[in-house]
Amino acid sequence: MLMTKRLSRVLERMEKKGLEAFLVTSPEAIAYLIGYHINPHERTYVMMLDQNGHHQLFFNQLFFVEEDLGMPITWFSDADDSMSIIAKALEGKKKIGVDKDMPARWLLPLMHKLDATFVLASDCIDLVRGVKEAHEIDLMIKASQINDEAMGYMQKTLAEGTHSEKEMDPLLLNEYKRLGATAHSFEPIVGYGKNGADPHHENDGSMLKPGDSIIVDMGCVYEGYCSDMTRTFFYKEASEKQKFVYNLVLKAQKAAEVAIKPGVALSEIDKIARDIITEGGYGKEFNHRLGHFIGQTCHEAGEVNATSDIIAEEGMIFSIEPGVYIPGEFGVRIEDLVLVTSDGVKVLNHYPKDLTII
Amino acid sequence: MLMTKRLSRVLERMEKKGLEAFLVTSPEAIAYLIGYHINPHERTYVMMLDQNGHHQLFFNQLFFVEEDLGMPITWFSDADDSMSIIAKALEGKKKIGVDKDMPARWLLPLMHKLDATFVLASDCIDLVRGVKEAHEIDLMIKASQINDEAMGYMQKTLAEGTHSEKEMDPLLLNEYKRLGATAHSFEPIVGYGKNGADPHHENDGSMLKPGDSIIVDMGCVYEGYCSDMTRTFFYKEASEKQKFVYNLVLKAQKAAEVAIKPGVALSEIDKIARDIITEGGYGKEFNHRLGHFIGQTCHEAGEVNATSDIIAEEGMIFSIEPGVYIPGEFGVRIEDLVLVTSDGVKVLNHYPKDLTII
Repeated sequence: MLMTKRLSRVLERMEKKGLEAFLVTSPEAIAYLIGYHINPHERTYVMMLDQNGHHQLFFNQLFFVEEDLGMPITWFSDADDSMSIIAKALEGKKKIGVDKDMPARWLLPLMHKLDATFVLASDCIDLVRGVKEAHEIDLMIKASQINDEAMGYMQKTLAEGTHSEKEMDPLLLNEYKRLGATAHSFEPIVGYGKNGADPHHENDGSMLKPGDSIIVDMGCVYEGYCSDMTRTFFYKEASEKQKFVYNLVLKAQKAAEVAIKPGVALSEIDKIARDIITEGGYGKEFNHRLGHFIGQTCHEAGEVNATSDIIAEEGMIFSIEPGVYIPGEFGVRIEDLVLVTSDGVKVLNHYPKDLTII
Repeated sequence: MLMTKRLSRVLERMEKKGLEAFLVTSPEAIAYLIGYHINPHERTYVMMLDQNGHHQLFFNQLFFVEEDLGMPITWFSDADDSMSIIAKALEGKKKIGVDKDMPARWLLPLMHKLDATFVLASDCIDLVRGVKEAHEIDLMIKASQINDEAMGYMQKTLAEGTHSEKEMDPLLLNEYKRLGATAHSFEPIVGYGKNGADPHHENDGSMLKPGDSIIVDMGCVYEGYCSDMTRTFFYKEASEKQKFVYNLVLKAQKAAEVAIKPGVALSEIDKIARDIITEGGYGKEFNHRLGHFIGQTCHEAGEVNATSDIIAEEGMIFSIEPGVYIPGEFGVRIEDLVLVTSDGVKVLNHYPKDLTII
């Protein structure tokens, strides 16, 4: 079913950029607009939005769609040159936008066949997805409530000190299901001690030792929408260095959160957190962006970082998650999801953030 | 560890195309060349191969690589504009190849920053991966032997008639593990009756009924290499129409297999099978390509279809899998993996293909 309100928001953004057509190739973005999800694997899968209203879908006949998707479908087979078919539909267009995911195997042949300017115009769809509708916000609030509750379970279970990192994943999944969620929104990270200093650590058989930091980065899926939160605990004891770093990250995290309101550049929010951590002497150890957008997938387009050109708008939901990682020693990350409101911000996570020794 | 023999095969192909540089972005392709796999998610991840030998990797500092990968790594952070860094390294190059997977969010900014011609040159790496080395061939033969054995288990278990489609998946996984494989190479398809007529059917709770066709499309991973085979059985009985279609598909499948040898165009192999099925009256119902390449992933670049420009070379391994799908009635698909030899072909699957009623 065509989501006409969403589509008109995309068309508005296309018009502002002067695009005559816009090619959407992300299966999630197409699903967002037609309410129907296909995983095309390596096969061509394109939605053409047309400023004149002649929108079209280009599908391989293997996809077997029976529903009315609200716009004509041009079918092709494995034997067809699908890019020639799409190029034909674009004939005469002079300025064509493409989304960020279009692969070179489609983009370069189209550029070769058409006398047009191609521009990266992903935000025409990404920023529409980034600004959530009321019912999406409700579901994401609920997903984060479940995440808060499940974090309580994690803290209690970790305090027993008897579980390896990788044993926590299935326990958490059971808890999520008990609370009404359907799945992890990503592989949860449970990192003990120095494992927490590697942002890409995979949970292993490590057991807790007194003085370990414990990074718990987790999220669930509730009715198709994701949550994502991180807390860092300390097991039995925390050194002065650990306490200093924890409170520094917490200060940065809170300062970034309260600065959010419509009209503020997300690069500025990143800077607020980064400056605090840099002044505290750990700028180099905060080695990633401050946050990312989230919705039907855990990482959606849109970043809170130094190079982002996104301005906060009411309805955006993203993470605020500064961290400090000291190789061979420990890591600290604190993350909430936040919703930009009409005049400020609503933090979606309520699990306590003060330094906690378990 | 840099795979120098593989790299020199890629450089040879680059030279033939007159490429001064080639950007590889597929994490699997990069892993094939450096023996080290990273899942970069949405972050920039690029290998630059340089006809002058100044190869480089461009990695986000989050990736934490300690090994020597045989070429310099240029590190950047979330705060950097990674495409400006890559563009700088490409300055002065006039003809630059990119692989098929490079997304528009990287390609368009590079094209904007550089005064160079960008060409789709994916086969420089894809066809190198497509021609297997001796030890890869050994592993793929073994993966297919396991698949043959497991198909025997599936036939025996299906004949009991007491399992739903979706119950077969975990049973098969157990059998694979018993035989020394580590995983499914893809979600196996077990399609009963009319479910088999939908090439994208997801296994459900359906039970077998006399007269059902049973499509079993399955593969395993053995020491990092994949197998993939399909057999179609009939439960209790088969109609004249089912028998006719089955034998037509079998005839097409065998004719395609025996025609394979070095120098033959893969589009010609597709045509041989398609012509037989078309002459039999079911051309429209054979609605997909004849086959695909396979190796460390189940679907690698390279297709056996009408538009393929690949010529068979010794060492290539791909599937030959014609099928006929009659909506609302039944489906038939028969698939083997084949290896192109110095003077012909070796079929890697040996499970019987004659019409079988179980």
